[in-house]
Amino acid sequence: MMRGDHTSQKLAFSFILLLIIVLASSQSALASKKPLNEKSPCKRFVLYYHDTLFNGTDAANATSATVANKTRLGDFNFGMLVVFDDPMTKDNHLLSPPVGRAQGFFFYDKKNEYNAWFAFTLVFNSSEYKGTLNIMGADLMPQKTRDLSVVGGTGDFFMARGIVTIETDTLQGDFYFRLKMDIKLYECY
Amino acid sequence: MMRGDHTSQKLAFSFILLLIIVLASSQSALASKKPLNEKSPCKRFVLYYHDTLFNGTDAANATSATVANKTRLGDFNFGMLVVFDDPMTKDNHLLSPPVGRAQGFFFYDKKNEYNAWFAFTLVFNSSEYKGTLNIMGADLMPQKTRDLSVVGGTGDFFMARGIVTIETDTLQGDFYFRLKMDIKLYECY
Amino acid sequence: MMRGDHTSQKLAFSFILLLIIVLASSQSALASKKPLNEKSPCKRFVLYYHDTLFNGTDAANATSATVANKTRLGDFNFGMLVVFDDPMTKDNHLLSPPVGRAQGFFFYDKKNEYNAWFAFTLVFNSSEYKGTLNIMGADLMPQKTRDLSVVGGTGDFFMARGIVTIETDTLQGDFYFRLKMDIKLYECY
Repeated sequence: MMRGDHTSQKLAFSFILLLIIVLASSQSALASKKPLNEKSPCKRFVLYYHDTLFNGTDAANATSATVANKTRLGDFNFGMLVVFDDPMTKDNHLLSPPVGRAQGFFFYDKKNEYNAWFAFTLVFNSSEYKGTLNIMGADLMPQKTRDLSVVGGTGDFFMARGIVTIETDTLQGDFYFRLKMDIKLYECY
Repeated sequence: MMRGDHTSQKLAFSFILLLIIVLASSQSALASKKPLNEKSPCKRFVLYYHDTLFNGTDAANATSATVANKTRLGDFNFGMLVVFDDPMTKDNHLLSPPVGRAQGFFFYDKKNEYNAWFAFTLVFNSSEYKGTLNIMGADLMPQKTRDLSVVGGTGDFFMARGIVTIETDTLQGDFYFRLKMDIKLYECY
Repeated sequence: MMRGDHTSQKLAFSFILLLIIVLASSQSALASKKPLNEKSPCKRFVLYYHDTLFNGTDAANATSATVANKTRLGDFNFGMLVVFDDPMTKDNHLLSPPVGRAQGFFFYDKKNEYNAWFAFTLVFNSSEYKGTLNIMGADLMPQKTRDLSVVGGTGDFFMARGIVTIETDTLQGDFYFRLKMDIKLYECY
């Protein structure tokens, strides 16, 4: 009988242990619905985007061109649409070897201040990464940093999602600007 | 021996209880792969979108402008491209205080009836919400309601996804229309 | 006492069994964070996309039109923007009954070779499927196959995400081309 008592005590203890495991597993199951933490991307890297707008004579250097002219709505280029195939570099030097291309478009869309809207694909074809990231969002230019959405990826970035935080790194007249892009992925597969 | 029987009965009962918990936790684990229910968004709100197209002289009121003219393909504005920075209000009054802006573009894209395609960002900067929602999809105008995709979000809407159900609330000539937007998020973090 | 031993042996065995179930459920909970496998879409089908560009006189047949002309940046149509409402068929015959429409736009965006960028909605309204899939990405034309992102879906494709692998099936002069689209969804609800 003593041994029976021992057995049931051990079993009771095991039950509690098991219950903890079960609840832990249950919690991780529930947690899996909300696994994303803004401060903990599963992948993160910074690249610089260089936009050199075609001025009509510099086709050798230019990597973007105006496709639709600004309208007469306000004084901030409302409606001006630019298509680009811009180099992405690891540092902020225009002539550094590109590690990818940003292909897409932006247009200005505010009548009383500068504001733009972007949709583009980051295309990687290097030893480091092969694949693409698809990105869209508003570029609220008066703010120091602006967040765009990474809405999908392919290749090494299969099904990725995340946030790209952009910041104007330099602005040189009408024909060159550079953005720092802090690319943070929260869904990696 | 009777006490041993009792113990094993209790244990058997506990096992069944435990098994139910385990299966429940296991089910919620499996369920977490498909947690989305069209009728149960994690966040939902209705806003009204007001598009006032620039007619060439009303820059003070206009919030959108034609960037590319319609083509000669059909009689339904095929190819006409409009960039907008439109106010979003809680009720259907154009002059209500905006709670956000819709910044993006649409174009008409059907030759034998009206049909449009939208991509835009809802920009919030109020006491209620700060952040953005990025949206795209077809506006099948002959249908009473049409569903667009919320493909990403930032700030208070970090990594959100969902559906925006739009409905034409009014259409006044060529220069003003209003959409009711029922914004339903199914991924909230 | 023998019976007590038996009981505890049985219980020990049950514990091990239960532990396996618990660990399995726990693992499936963890696995649910990364359930996607590139080779195992939850839905897959192939469709053909037919683009017949308006030449100014064939409005009856044409399903797309140039909205912004190419720029003088390079010799590969940089900046030429086309809006389309193109039929999708199950086989590669232009005149097969369409099972859906692809509504959206593309533009060329490279100055030293052909390259395009697409954003569009697949619209289904058949006995098989009702709903939409929203798609965007770079069309790196020199590559045999290119991957675009399915960034959202509605109706029968509620909240879907995935990859569309496109391949040029034929190219006939300036006014007709056909893409094979292998649509693979990895998030189905």
